[in-house]
Amino acid sequence: MRLSAAGACSPAHSPATARLASVRAARAPCRVRQVAAVPAAAGANGASGGNSAAPGAAASNSNGAAGHLEVYRVGNATNIRWFEVMVEREDKERLLGQRGCMLWFTGLSGSGKSTVACTLEHMLHELGHFTVLLDGDNIRHGLNKDLGFSAEDRAENIRRIGEVAKLFADSGAVTMTSFISPYRADRDMVRERCRPGEFLEVHMAVPIEVCEARDPKGLYKKARAGLIKNFTGIDDPYEAPLAPEIAVTPYDEEGNMRSPRQMALQILDTLQELGYLRDPAMPTLAVASALQRKHSDGILDFSCL
Amino acid sequence: MRLSAAGACSPAHSPATARLASVRAARAPCRVRQVAAVPAAAGANGASGGNSAAPGAAASNSNGAAGHLEVYRVGNATNIRWFEVMVEREDKERLLGQRGCMLWFTGLSGSGKSTVACTLEHMLHELGHFTVLLDGDNIRHGLNKDLGFSAEDRAENIRRIGEVAKLFADSGAVTMTSFISPYRADRDMVRERCRPGEFLEVHMAVPIEVCEARDPKGLYKKARAGLIKNFTGIDDPYEAPLAPEIAVTPYDEEGNMRSPRQMALQILDTLQELGYLRDPAMPTLAVASALQRKHSDGILDFSCL
Repeated sequence: MRLSAAGACSPAHSPATARLASVRAARAPCRVRQVAAVPAAAGANGASGGNSAAPGAAASNSNGAAGHLEVYRVGNATNIRWFEVMVEREDKERLLGQRGCMLWFTGLSGSGKSTVACTLEHMLHELGHFTVLLDGDNIRHGLNKDLGFSAEDRAENIRRIGEVAKLFADSGAVTMTSFISPYRADRDMVRERCRPGEFLEVHMAVPIEVCEARDPKGLYKKARAGLIKNFTGIDDPYEAPLAPEIAVTPYDEEGNMRSPRQMALQILDTLQELGYLRDPAMPTLAVASALQRKHSDGILDFSCL
Repeated sequence: MRLSAAGACSPAHSPATARLASVRAARAPCRVRQVAAVPAAAGANGASGGNSAAPGAAASNSNGAAGHLEVYRVGNATNIRWFEVMVEREDKERLLGQRGCMLWFTGLSGSGKSTVACTLEHMLHELGHFTVLLDGDNIRHGLNKDLGFSAEDRAENIRRIGEVAKLFADSGAVTMTSFISPYRADRDMVRERCRPGEFLEVHMAVPIEVCEARDPKGLYKKARAGLIKNFTGIDDPYEAPLAPEIAVTPYDEEGNMRSPRQMALQILDTLQELGYLRDPAMPTLAVASALQRKHSDGILDFSCL
């Protein structure tokens, strides 16, 4: 009785959920191939009356929940594992139609990091891609609000940003970070935490004269006046990347200034060429489920997957 | 010349990118309504020869990039802002067909937090939802590897997890965290950082006797033997939520044990009832772009949006 409740398609709290649940259960074996057989097998064990339940599992029934949770230990160990392993990165990437990556923008203050990253984020979004952009606004006031500007804190700042960016990239997001990140060692530390091809260093290779002439926040003026100490490029070094994956220069081949849009398109183009964006040969889960929603008047139908 | 290059649809690095760029530029005004007019206006200014360029912008042309970047200051200030504001949360939620939220699983060791969260993540994924699950495996070995188990470090552990979860929720992800998080004050600190309705406390309300009987990692046995100090529920308190959004109990109405799948379905059902998951009245960008990809033989076509 207990085991058959576990094995059967569970009674849900609403008809809609029940429908989704039963549909989902029915289709599981045909899509998540490497794992789908496992819960089905657990269900079969349950439905057949728990005849393969280990003595230990049956015994623990007497004390309540422990026994029930043990039902997933019936059979071989993968019965447990299916429920305790997160959705794989590759499956999320398939859902999103892209590959998770980390575009690490680095460059002097005023070099256009945030402007280009924002422009690129809008472009990617309008193409249907899921993005995240980490910058001072959403990091310094939140996660890293306890950090100052000492050497240790600067390194810790970059380390944490790298770890968060890694979590996003692991989820399949096209992840952008926009920080001066002046020290090569800090950036390389993040790179080393990434899998091959995941970390794309984007160097905003804009000369300091240009950045200082722009000076959108008036920071260079203050630094020259001695009002800001340890300002990158003035009295603190900027260590340019030696071999960035993407170098963004301010001029085009004809010597004309490039717009933020042109710079962002350069990066978009690189992402496409390197295969980070939607692979046309691989229909995404999003496409499939969208079509199914389209064809089923709002009721999810996974039968053709 | 400079300004017209900025205004025109930029020359791209590959024909595919050029096509995407021109298509994107053409459709921008009809979808991102609140902002789309801005880049178009900037383009128009550029195409018409920069006749509305401010004297400052024209003057700074002499020193290179600064002048060009100034072009976006032509006209009113929103011309800049469009490029410096990230994609809005609501737009990402529309893309993903869901609302960003934070399911904060809390409960004793062995109460099934990770098992249920993993099960729920698989369910949500198979329904086409974008999820992230933060737990000890991906947090303690990365972002929080510098933290120990002192009172301060435990609080900082939860604070950082909350901040990262907030970043994911802000991106539209259905975000799950699976940590004992025994102290009410720490959980409430995270709740207070969230917007109304964003934080959903999920209490795994499993009695300690049940958890200890399960003891999947043998931790209770070690704690009872004095081999682990400050173990939650043994010699350190667990402060149960007073009013969790979702309380998951181990028994159903008939007194039978509930499976992890049933528990996960309870949460899924709540998410659906509260409107966090796909709103059928609001076609998602993913649906639209999927259909367009379907209908255009691999070439993106946004004309009907």
